[in-house]
Amino acid sequence: MNFTPAKFIVRALCTKQTPSNRFWFKIGDTASVSKAFSAADVQAFADLSGDTNPLHLDENYAKTTRYGRCIVHGVLVNGLISAVFGTKLPGRSVIFVSQNLKFTAPVFIGEKVTAKVEVTGMEKAMVTLSTTCTVPENQKVVATGSVKLYIPRPAADNTAS
Amino acid sequence: MNFTPAKFIVRALCTKQTPSNRFWFKIGDTASVSKAFSAADVQAFADLSGDTNPLHLDENYAKTTRYGRCIVHGVLVNGLISAVFGTKLPGRSVIFVSQNLKFTAPVFIGEKVTAKVEVTGMEKAMVTLSTTCTVPENQKVVATGSVKLYIPRPAADNTAS
Repeated sequence: MNFTPAKFIVRALCTKQTPSNRFWFKIGDTASVSKAFSAADVQAFADLSGDTNPLHLDENYAKTTRYGRCIVHGVLVNGLISAVFGTKLPGRSVIFVSQNLKFTAPVFIGEKVTAKVEVTGMEKAMVTLSTTCTVPENQKVVATGSVKLYIPRPAADNTAS
Repeated sequence: MNFTPAKFIVRALCTKQTPSNRFWFKIGDTASVSKAFSAADVQAFADLSGDTNPLHLDENYAKTTRYGRCIVHGVLVNGLISAVFGTKLPGRSVIFVSQNLKFTAPVFIGEKVTAKVEVTGMEKAMVTLSTTCTVPENQKVVATGSVKLYIPRPAADNTAS
């Protein structure tokens, strides 16, 4: 049986709660960005954040760990999620409220990562996106989670991420 | 009455579950790092992550928003939390498992932010830290949350963040 009443009701409610001047997207919309972080990128982030953990910076040290080579900071990979929702979907007119994030596998330096967001909920002025980061080359899922964003009315172009 | 049986039981359980060779810290331990992000830092992070939201980069645009001036990327502020647990407490020998993060106020460019972690739970090989980012100058709390980390046995110096 293909009829899924629960899903139907959720979609109907979301549509009902959506002021047309606030949400310019719908549940199910997706967007993504991709990037391969170089050793120079990782060093630059270590300099910016102060996270100089040698697993990210020192190949000799990384060889002694279970990973065998340097990995990208998880919080830098998370920057791709911010890039997607801050520049594509919904875009710059959002306020970053909260995030849940689970790291499921390491990202090695040089691996191309794709961060994808999908609109999963809209209620009043809030939108929820599911977030997934993968390495497309080998289908490795490296991070999953969700973000909540506040969407100001278009008249007040208030923005944050 | 100062006796808090629930807290006492939690502490006793945590101690019981703590292999002495795995946890070199205890519940209540804290550590912190501080940094003021410059406009150049924010531009560098925009270049790294692709998050070129003009609220972070364009003063003229930022003036049109509720904030009135450029703010630091939330995910860059979050880098300070990674820096604390990846270099101080527990330090490099950890694996970043998950995070909950709530942004409560913007961080303006040039504001000194302090990221503090506190050990709140230890169970088997996992440690939970509460995380708080504040602007000490005006006591503004800008982010709260928690992280879960896996602590490998010291014999295998496996590390991630």
